[in-house]
Amino acid sequence: MAEFTTADQAAAEQPSAGAPPLDGHEAAVILERTRASVDPELRAAIDSLPGSMRRIALYHFGWEHADGTPAAGSAGKAIRPALVLTAAAALGGPRARATALRAAAAVELVHNFTLLHDDVMDRDTTRRHRPTAWTVFGDADAILAGDALQALALGLLAEDPHPASSAAAARLASCVVELCAGQHADTALERRHPGEVTLDEVLTMAEAKTGALLGCACALGALYAGASDEDVEALDAFGRQAGLAFQLIDDVIGIWGDPKRTGKPAGADLAVRKKSLPVVAALTSGTPAATELAELYELPYAKEDLERTVLAVERAGGRDWAQVQAADRMARAMDELTRAVADPEAAGGLLALAEFVTRRST
Amino acid sequence: MAEFTTADQAAAEQPSAGAPPLDGHEAAVILERTRASVDPELRAAIDSLPGSMRRIALYHFGWEHADGTPAAGSAGKAIRPALVLTAAAALGGPRARATALRAAAAVELVHNFTLLHDDVMDRDTTRRHRPTAWTVFGDADAILAGDALQALALGLLAEDPHPASSAAAARLASCVVELCAGQHADTALERRHPGEVTLDEVLTMAEAKTGALLGCACALGALYAGASDEDVEALDAFGRQAGLAFQLIDDVIGIWGDPKRTGKPAGADLAVRKKSLPVVAALTSGTPAATELAELYELPYAKEDLERTVLAVERAGGRDWAQVQAADRMARAMDELTRAVADPEAAGGLLALAEFVTRRST
Repeated sequence: MAEFTTADQAAAEQPSAGAPPLDGHEAAVILERTRASVDPELRAAIDSLPGSMRRIALYHFGWEHADGTPAAGSAGKAIRPALVLTAAAALGGPRARATALRAAAAVELVHNFTLLHDDVMDRDTTRRHRPTAWTVFGDADAILAGDALQALALGLLAEDPHPASSAAAARLASCVVELCAGQHADTALERRHPGEVTLDEVLTMAEAKTGALLGCACALGALYAGASDEDVEALDAFGRQAGLAFQLIDDVIGIWGDPKRTGKPAGADLAVRKKSLPVVAALTSGTPAATELAELYELPYAKEDLERTVLAVERAGGRDWAQVQAADRMARAMDELTRAVADPEAAGGLLALAEFVTRRST
Repeated sequence: MAEFTTADQAAAEQPSAGAPPLDGHEAAVILERTRASVDPELRAAIDSLPGSMRRIALYHFGWEHADGTPAAGSAGKAIRPALVLTAAAALGGPRARATALRAAAAVELVHNFTLLHDDVMDRDTTRRHRPTAWTVFGDADAILAGDALQALALGLLAEDPHPASSAAAARLASCVVELCAGQHADTALERRHPGEVTLDEVLTMAEAKTGALLGCACALGALYAGASDEDVEALDAFGRQAGLAFQLIDDVIGIWGDPKRTGKPAGADLAVRKKSLPVVAALTSGTPAATELAELYELPYAKEDLERTVLAVERAGGRDWAQVQAADRMARAMDELTRAVADPEAAGGLLALAEFVTRRST
């Protein structure tokens, strides 16, 4: 899936769902603090691996170059561990946050196991501005390192004496299964004829592939804070809805994003005929523009057709639908958050992270 | 790795390490009883998967044909779950055995996750006399189904209320990491020049790839019986040594096995220039036959050289070394078993299983 490193006017124009405007500073502070407290856990876990697996993991996390020399490290934004720690703090205060470091590391390990495997399956050659692990170490070693990271993640929780650790491990394991089903659905959808794909299918896929782990991260934080089952589920739903909002906006950026800011060519998703959320919304709109878009999607990509394709998605309502949906998902996320964390001050950190993933970047 | 379905005169000729002769009947009874009690756990776990993942898992386990129609099922010999249950019974009696069903299913799920992934990496096209999952569903789906089975295994233990379940999950997770390192070492060794590979390296690889999960299975049974740390480690060592004995004998069969009984062509491992244990023992023997073997291994395989290659391994002492090593490993396994389970009657089941994997077949 996409990293949380893109942003665009399209995103900045999102309605704010009634939340107070945030400048992203709070989220940046949370993310920095997360890295500082979770990185040592993560490094210790990875250092416990046998040499062959450790080398690939250190490369993937950006802590080593391919030749084994130390690197500065650029292991993503740490959104998921930040959600674990911030959810724990929101429901149980700083003490709960302090007990949830392993859980935060476990979620980040699971995320990175899926990145290693997804990159092999999708033949993606770049990740976090570096060659992907499979391009450096080969498919087999990238698969094995991913397998080892999953084991490391669930092993961390199994060794954690915290009373919530078993429930957290069960939840994380079940989330992995959902992530696998989501990745399967994603590749299966891309292989199908555009006319056969329903909006429900793409939304379900996006929830499994993107929403599930964000929801699980929040739920684990709640579990470590000793929250009630109801609050754990509300936090899971908060993360899932925020994740879907992120995906909707990421898909908008994939079509209307400014190449100068996204680093990708204009209309990148249309060029590869991706069945992203706005495209499927457009294709299933029953409008004349939907027919035009379906015809264009039948043809191989030609640069001179790009503008017409973009306009067809717009005229068929794909962009508006995605933006309204994203705002709606964010509103639902806020409802769930308020249900579990009534005090606005305690909820502030999670709110800032949700705003960050759906609207901002650096 | 190899399934426990081959046998041969070479194996039958193994010294029996002082153990009373067994006709394999006791092992067959244990394996049948294991299937009867573990299969329902296993089926329930697999049935809990989302449709896409369930379909691949059911095919891999032999419970469905590729088209989704029911199949008779031929999911291997269930040696590993049998070791879990028999170790639990040896140290804690029938009540301990009854509590260890989930742990037994978890070990079998981990074994099958590694088979799914190893088949993708090794490009193996046949498993249990059927086309491998990746040949039917593609690489991506076989990788995802393997990922899901690992999660299912560790999730089963996380949900298990038994007081030993966390320790068991931690041990199984750590075993997965060792299995990954073993598979990496195996493929890395096969890529290296025969003259550069040491016997220690091949033994370490075989222990990680084959011994680790057999040891872990026995250790999990001991944990579920509430055994002391010392007994858990002794049971782990028992399984590891028996696993190494199995691998040594399997490698002997790979060269001297009777094609009529193994179903593979004569000298199959030599034809693919495999650096199996007897071959590396021969290559590192410092004898004139070692030099001859090294020269033959430099050349592409030619059928007319097979007899000379087999003889070179023999004259360099590869066969004798492997047989003595196998007997030695079995003796060590028995020592460890006796240390933890002093009563010969209680130890009988584990002894029968060890004899079965190292000497017998269907």
